[in-house]
Amino acid sequence: MRRIIKPEFDLIPADGWLRKVYNVIYLDNTRQGKIFDVSLLILILISVGLLMVETIPLVNLKYHNLFYTAEFIITMIFTVEYILRIACIKDKKEYIFSPIGIIDFLSIIPFYLSLFFPIIHYIGILRMLRMLRIFRIFNLADYMHDGRYIVTALNHSSRKIYIFLLFMVIFIVIIGSMMYLIEGGKNGFTSIPQSIYWAVVTITTVGYGDISPATPVGKFLSIIVMLCGYSIIAVPTGIVTSEFRKGKRYHFMCGRCGNDDNDNDARYCKQCGEKFA
Amino acid sequence: MRRIIKPEFDLIPADGWLRKVYNVIYLDNTRQGKIFDVSLLILILISVGLLMVETIPLVNLKYHNLFYTAEFIITMIFTVEYILRIACIKDKKEYIFSPIGIIDFLSIIPFYLSLFFPIIHYIGILRMLRMLRIFRIFNLADYMHDGRYIVTALNHSSRKIYIFLLFMVIFIVIIGSMMYLIEGGKNGFTSIPQSIYWAVVTITTVGYGDISPATPVGKFLSIIVMLCGYSIIAVPTGIVTSEFRKGKRYHFMCGRCGNDDNDNDARYCKQCGEKFA
Amino acid sequence: MRRIIKPEFDLIPADGWLRKVYNVIYLDNTRQGKIFDVSLLILILISVGLLMVETIPLVNLKYHNLFYTAEFIITMIFTVEYILRIACIKDKKEYIFSPIGIIDFLSIIPFYLSLFFPIIHYIGILRMLRMLRIFRIFNLADYMHDGRYIVTALNHSSRKIYIFLLFMVIFIVIIGSMMYLIEGGKNGFTSIPQSIYWAVVTITTVGYGDISPATPVGKFLSIIVMLCGYSIIAVPTGIVTSEFRKGKRYHFMCGRCGNDDNDNDARYCKQCGEKFA
Amino acid sequence: MRRIIKPEFDLIPADGWLRKVYNVIYLDNTRQGKIFDVSLLILILISVGLLMVETIPLVNLKYHNLFYTAEFIITMIFTVEYILRIACIKDKKEYIFSPIGIIDFLSIIPFYLSLFFPIIHYIGILRMLRMLRIFRIFNLADYMHDGRYIVTALNHSSRKIYIFLLFMVIFIVIIGSMMYLIEGGKNGFTSIPQSIYWAVVTITTVGYGDISPATPVGKFLSIIVMLCGYSIIAVPTGIVTSEFRKGKRYHFMCGRCGNDDNDNDARYCKQCGEKFA
Repeated sequence: MRRIIKPEFDLIPADGWLRKVYNVIYLDNTRQGKIFDVSLLILILISVGLLMVETIPLVNLKYHNLFYTAEFIITMIFTVEYILRIACIKDKKEYIFSPIGIIDFLSIIPFYLSLFFPIIHYIGILRMLRMLRIFRIFNLADYMHDGRYIVTALNHSSRKIYIFLLFMVIFIVIIGSMMYLIEGGKNGFTSIPQSIYWAVVTITTVGYGDISPATPVGKFLSIIVMLCGYSIIAVPTGIVTSEFRKGKRYHFMCGRCGNDDNDNDARYCKQCGEKFA
Repeated sequence: MRRIIKPEFDLIPADGWLRKVYNVIYLDNTRQGKIFDVSLLILILISVGLLMVETIPLVNLKYHNLFYTAEFIITMIFTVEYILRIACIKDKKEYIFSPIGIIDFLSIIPFYLSLFFPIIHYIGILRMLRMLRIFRIFNLADYMHDGRYIVTALNHSSRKIYIFLLFMVIFIVIIGSMMYLIEGGKNGFTSIPQSIYWAVVTITTVGYGDISPATPVGKFLSIIVMLCGYSIIAVPTGIVTSEFRKGKRYHFMCGRCGNDDNDNDARYCKQCGEKFA
Repeated sequence: MRRIIKPEFDLIPADGWLRKVYNVIYLDNTRQGKIFDVSLLILILISVGLLMVETIPLVNLKYHNLFYTAEFIITMIFTVEYILRIACIKDKKEYIFSPIGIIDFLSIIPFYLSLFFPIIHYIGILRMLRMLRIFRIFNLADYMHDGRYIVTALNHSSRKIYIFLLFMVIFIVIIGSMMYLIEGGKNGFTSIPQSIYWAVVTITTVGYGDISPATPVGKFLSIIVMLCGYSIIAVPTGIVTSEFRKGKRYHFMCGRCGNDDNDNDARYCKQCGEKFA
Repeated sequence: MRRIIKPEFDLIPADGWLRKVYNVIYLDNTRQGKIFDVSLLILILISVGLLMVETIPLVNLKYHNLFYTAEFIITMIFTVEYILRIACIKDKKEYIFSPIGIIDFLSIIPFYLSLFFPIIHYIGILRMLRMLRIFRIFNLADYMHDGRYIVTALNHSSRKIYIFLLFMVIFIVIIGSMMYLIEGGKNGFTSIPQSIYWAVVTITTVGYGDISPATPVGKFLSIIVMLCGYSIIAVPTGIVTSEFRKGKRYHFMCGRCGNDDNDNDARYCKQCGEKFA
């Protein structure tokens, strides 16, 4: 099983209090480790929630100071956690420049930047990246097991979906160009990119209605496009469904005993009983 | 088979007229019981229909008294039924505090409240909860058999759908934040929650059009989001379909003889011939 | 195989010119019969096309007389055909009061009515029923073979889809009532029926945008509803797909030899070689 | 395997420099051939990109000369390529009048026409046909292998989808006519073709909202239509999915050894090991 999000940093200090911190922060097989993970999850959710609500003009006007204080406290906690994460492993560079380390860094730096350059408001949105830290925690959770099932099916059908999207893109560009010609650059179809935007909105059945055909010929072509989209929607479904059906056939290897005949949905190794994450 | 809606209140009086009332109200194996169920169903449908039509301003203005009278009569019938339901069972508390008992209570109390506090208009909508009583009746019906099939397939795929929704939510929040940045808080994208609302409207292909991207970059990101949504729509379909396909494999236990090898779609126990609800 | 649209009127005259007319009008195994069917099909398509175009105000203003003349000629032909159809069978009542006979009658009568009661403009739309006559011709065609496949799969899954729709309706009514309360009768949610209309527009992902939530709570509920709709859309697909998969299992009986073990997609009887319509 | 887009022109000169040009332009088994293909692909993408951006009024105003120069250079290259393609094969007519030859011709001629007839602006859009040349290159690529899988499944289910569309069209015309009657030619339903446009927009769940029902009866019919569309959307999905499932069953013939028992997804002939395109 490929671990996408959470690399493991095994280079730990032999013992001492750093060893204990390592166990709490990086592992989840102790009581304290689990409590730490859940606290972190809650803190991230609160933090992301605050960031979202903060952007509502009325709310920000009223509770600006409250948000500032909360952000200050949360950033402090994340900073301490970040320093500890670096402190308790040997190969510090490996963590700092890993994707997860960069996300951890980007989660706290905007606050400090905003102290010196108060103008850069929008950089604060970078803090939303904190949400990606949820994956670190969920990666450990039992839920990942079923996630793997979905990812496997999507991986196996990705090639077919790429081709499908290629055909779609060509189809969309041609339809967009035709509509630009038919509507004569009016009624919102002011350029080919604009018409392509309309074609995507139509074929995916989103249909905002900010651009819609006004001429009879344009409407007729739209009807054809919509009915096509209606039939086409079946294709990716068919591809993915037929992969899900085959789900059982995929096997993966046990990391302990090397047995590579474990079913896709197995939770324990057939041969040695190793529990899979 | 788990009975979700209708708990059975077996604590009946030995005999007398209450026993007869119990048979009519709680059971449906007699002619009177069936007539009672159908009458109740019709009464509920009429009542819900009236409640809906009543909210149309013009209609309410014209026929206010008619609606009031109808509501009065229907509430009276439901009140009598409610009292009888309590009267004819031994363990009255079990019924009163069961979900179905609470629904029955909430169906009649708003009317009485409105007599004393005529201001509370909107509490009247609580009477719509009467509709949930339909489940009590349909629970007995033969139709539940196929409903079980759907529920079983959904239950078995619920874990996979939860994970899928988790990924979706994170994806939606990130897209929403990006659009807030790109559109710069204008064109309806006034805050991140607002942008998230837009992202959901777009990915689910609803596309109201009350908020739609106006900048070229925003439109380009929308195109990506829509094409993603188009591919993503295949995932829950794939999950559920592959569960439906496996439908036959689920077995359940006969309540009479204990045989637990009955097919999911069996209508009679293989071993003892017991008819399933 | 149940013949839904085209009843067969076997009560023919023994011979003479009526017999020949019968062969041309009712059967398609002769050259003339096929030519007649194709001509009729083209005439129906022209007629329906004219009826549609006629409703465009500008076109009608300009070419009113042309449309009138065309309609006159077409109605004459259909009238002659109708009279011949009646003339060349014995049991005239059986045809006249069959669904197909009534459609034939309704296709021509509006024109004659409009001669005497020129006011009744909209009754002319009844002539659109002519389109249903297409089924009579296609029924004979080889294409019906695959249509049967779809109908069989839908029939077999209809019960499950009914239950699904029942749950949907209850869900929609509850959501509609809640939105009416939340939006407080404003922003287009003026009554519960109106809110239900919004709920259907949202759950089916149509999303006109003529009514859309304006309050934050309403938007939040909408998000939940849309994500639910997104998951729910998988259910009917799952039901129908699993029926299609089982398609091969359905058998039907040969009308000639009585063998009832013919596969759903068989084009010839296994036992006697009878070709199926 | 039917080659739809790229006919092969085997009538090559025996040797000389034309032979070398042929190898580079028509084949891709040499290093130069591959570089040529990739260069051509990039040139086409740039060209199509420029054509799209050119239609944006603001951009065109500012960089008109730049676009003109770029178009001039690209057309020159394509012209040289076109001449070489004709020069290095024997049967020139076969190429010139093949679909691919016509596309190549239409890709360059609009530029020359615009030199003499500068008025014909819109004919320039014909240059978008260049995009179809991408297929020529991708046809050679390994990706076609999976594309074939999709095309096979669609071909096998096309008949069923045609019938489905026929029923849909009749359903849509009837619904459209009914809505025209119900809304009385108002609220955007100004004619039957207009109402049919609305019906397609609704059933395919696109839902622009440029036309939406305003009367209660119209809204009620819309609810029915939307719920139908919701169920109907399952039908093409079911058809295509069940074909994908059968995918393995299709076989095709090896062009070298004649073995016709190769699986649909085989990449090498079972018998002789021939690699399939």
